[in-house]
Amino acid sequence: MQDEQHIPARLREIRESIDNFDAALIHILAERFKCTQEVGYLKARHGLPATDSERERQQIARLKALAVDSNLDPAFAEKFLNFIIAEVIHHHTEASNRLKP
Amino acid sequence: MQDEQHIPARLREIRESIDNFDAALIHILAERFKCTQEVGYLKARHGLPATDSERERQQIARLKALAVDSNLDPAFAEKFLNFIIAEVIHHHTEASNRLKP
Repeated sequence: MQDEQHIPARLREIRESIDNFDAALIHILAERFKCTQEVGYLKARHGLPATDSERERQQIARLKALAVDSNLDPAFAEKFLNFIIAEVIHHHTEASNRLKP
Repeated sequence: MQDEQHIPARLREIRESIDNFDAALIHILAERFKCTQEVGYLKARHGLPATDSERERQQIARLKALAVDSNLDPAFAEKFLNFIIAEVIHHHTEASNRLKP
């Protein structure tokens, strides 16, 4: 019974940590998108292609290695980067369209 | 011409920041999944349902508000949380299956 009573308290405790991590993730993502916004602006202004497959290949390899080091599924790290990149390309396309006469 | 030469240097600089943010994201995600692994274990062990729609509703509302505060698209914050939750449910299902006789 003591164990059963303990569960909601522990669950609440873990959820507080999850909420803290989520706030950190959102704030870091906000800063990351500021960076990619500037990249998009530079690329659109100077006629550089929106995507760079060699850079993406390096990013995926690096993140997979970091994932392994932190005991995270490397396949998830790749999925995660692709998810972020899809959003970035969406932003870049919008930025490029805004610069068109 | 000076401006043109300046682009690759600035691009490199921004990409270094992006790489730093990505490392931070991966490490925070690794810690977050440790939390949800424990949540999954508690839930599976005590026969609690894998999903909790009220908790998810609160999380989405909170993250959207944090996104607005940090000038991030709230729709993206919701998509991001759903992306993470899908991975968590996948982990929980696996954990639950491991506990079955």
